[in-house]
Amino acid sequence: MKKKIAVLPGDGIGPEVIKSALQVLDGVATRFGHEFETAEKVFGGAAIDQKGTPLPDDTLEVCKGSDAVLLGAVGGPKWDKGNVRPEQGLLALRKALNVYANLRPVQVFPGLEHLSPLKSCRVKGADFVFVRELTGGIYFSEPKKRDRKSAVDTLSYTREEISRIVEKAYELAAGRRGKVTSVDKANVLETSKLWREIVEETAKKYPNVQTEHMLVDFAAMRMISDPGSFDVIVTENMFGDILSDEASVLTGSLGMMPSASLSERGPGLYEPIHGSAPDIAGSGKANPIGMILSVAMMLRHSFQLEKEAAAVELAVFETLQAGYRTQDIYDGTGNLVSTKEMVDQIHFRMLEDSTSATLLEVYV
Amino acid sequence: MKKKIAVLPGDGIGPEVIKSALQVLDGVATRFGHEFETAEKVFGGAAIDQKGTPLPDDTLEVCKGSDAVLLGAVGGPKWDKGNVRPEQGLLALRKALNVYANLRPVQVFPGLEHLSPLKSCRVKGADFVFVRELTGGIYFSEPKKRDRKSAVDTLSYTREEISRIVEKAYELAAGRRGKVTSVDKANVLETSKLWREIVEETAKKYPNVQTEHMLVDFAAMRMISDPGSFDVIVTENMFGDILSDEASVLTGSLGMMPSASLSERGPGLYEPIHGSAPDIAGSGKANPIGMILSVAMMLRHSFQLEKEAAAVELAVFETLQAGYRTQDIYDGTGNLVSTKEMVDQIHFRMLEDSTSATLLEVYV
Ligand SMILES: [Mg+2]
Ligand SMILES: [Mg+2]
Repeated sequence: MKKKIAVLPGDGIGPEVIKSALQVLDGVATRFGHEFETAEKVFGGAAIDQKGTPLPDDTLEVCKGSDAVLLGAVGGPKWDKGNVRPEQGLLALRKALNVYANLRPVQVFPGLEHLSPLKSCRVKGADFVFVRELTGGIYFSEPKKRDRKSAVDTLSYTREEISRIVEKAYELAAGRRGKVTSVDKANVLETSKLWREIVEETAKKYPNVQTEHMLVDFAAMRMISDPGSFDVIVTENMFGDILSDEASVLTGSLGMMPSASLSERGPGLYEPIHGSAPDIAGSGKANPIGMILSVAMMLRHSFQLEKEAAAVELAVFETLQAGYRTQDIYDGTGNLVSTKEMVDQIHFRMLEDSTSATLLEVYV
Repeated sequence: MKKKIAVLPGDGIGPEVIKSALQVLDGVATRFGHEFETAEKVFGGAAIDQKGTPLPDDTLEVCKGSDAVLLGAVGGPKWDKGNVRPEQGLLALRKALNVYANLRPVQVFPGLEHLSPLKSCRVKGADFVFVRELTGGIYFSEPKKRDRKSAVDTLSYTREEISRIVEKAYELAAGRRGKVTSVDKANVLETSKLWREIVEETAKKYPNVQTEHMLVDFAAMRMISDPGSFDVIVTENMFGDILSDEASVLTGSLGMMPSASLSERGPGLYEPIHGSAPDIAGSGKANPIGMILSVAMMLRHSFQLEKEAAAVELAVFETLQAGYRTQDIYDGTGNLVSTKEMVDQIHFRMLEDSTSATLLEVYV
């Protein structure tokens, strides 16, 4: 298989984790005989510095012309006071690619429960995925205005915007444990009432999927008190922003969490959920696993390469089982390694698995 | 001192916890020589049943004519499918009383850290208070509309609405540990940009208070990863709704958390943060402490009876130290008691303290 991938390193540790991802992707190409053509483009704060805008036209063009986009991280205090922020580039890119569905798996890795701020018994086995609407809602709706005396934002949704994201959640749940938790604020918001109506209609098409409605404030509680009760959580943009970030600290391993942002037909956008961490940029301390698992999501969701995706995930899992730890997940036991050493271990295991897989094929 | 108090038992366990509160209030009156005149009125689901509306006119009139309002809890599955919801009465009451400032203390009781879903080391010593804007923002702003094809909500704030709540937070912080965390989403919302501007202006008037700005999604993470870092958190209505509910489970003792909703001049509204818990209504299992600590907040914030408020809080604290536990906070050790027995213990300790205080006054 031959695929074109746009690569946006971005800022801070972005370039380091992107480099890691490309090494692993190279391993996938070698082992499975694929060809991945990558085109690296400037984005975020780096693009503001070079071109005065976080999303230059040619960066966007290359993204649009690719089969998928890999993104490191953007932002940093350097650009906090400027007129344009790196994050605006991210919002613009999502909008331009029309990636309306943001998938964020939250998984507690076996053996790493102790990293969680929660008691181990609470988080053990937690394994769910957020399906967040990403291109509509209050971050984008008009009118927006502000003067010295007042300010207004607007939260609007159309039936189509809601239907497609809810549909995506049910599809995903049907291939998982079969439960959708729809989060809204239907007791006060009109957009939430429409949302709930559409969820009810969609649910009828998936008789094997269980549906649960939950108010956003209650969901914020449940996320802590019983995270194991979720399978697929579907919600609108801002609720998804808040709740998925809340959930991200439950595992205690922010640096290990991937994400995918999918459109209806165009390229998907894959990025770790962690930020650009400018304080550790260049020091070899970045955890590359969030980025590498994002590559796995790309292989699965954009290229339908399930076997390849699973191979990457297995290599990550085995490397963790073998005790390798970057500083963010190091607790004094195991083997403290740099970004580069972690990637080498993962890369090596992927090839080793390949060998044993070949051996198995020969001898069985 | 003579004060008029409107009493709204509401639904579910509301009447039980209100009864508890009144017994303790009676103790305060006896011990300190005050006169509290109470008027009980129907509210919430009970009012829908009796009068077809959750906030009948005469209930509102009595509230408006009182010095403070004590509220139990409203809602329940019985009214979930109806045209009018009990919660609408709550929104209407808050709006009518113009209680724009919602204060919600979050405190981990010494010795009860183990109740938290978080590791004890994470929550130990956590002690902060939410100052949530309660009468503006997206739950109230117009236009709101919905048809089959789309829906719209509006989030608007005026400078005055923001100024007064921010001011309240700084006042409170000045009397506490001197730190305000202002939560917004200033990277994308216009209302948040105005919010941040006003916080900056207000901060200049309080040179001894430290100011920290935090994005709402990051705050949702920090609440779990480092709850001890907060002192006063000030935020707009919906962010406050989500974050304060999230914070409420940190202590593991939802039934013990009070709240106050304050207006500029009129009566304040005091209620526990727990719901109406229809499943345990009438069984004597309700924890009355959230309601009793709300009485303490009333004594402090509406009547400026600081000594009386502290006496109630001390009695609660001592009762917990003595090992008394309602079922929701019982972990197999200590003394499992009913609502009534818990209240009797608190009431008794308040009088006992009174004796020792009197003895002290005589002998010292
Ligand atoms: Mg976020
Ligand atoms: Mg709430």
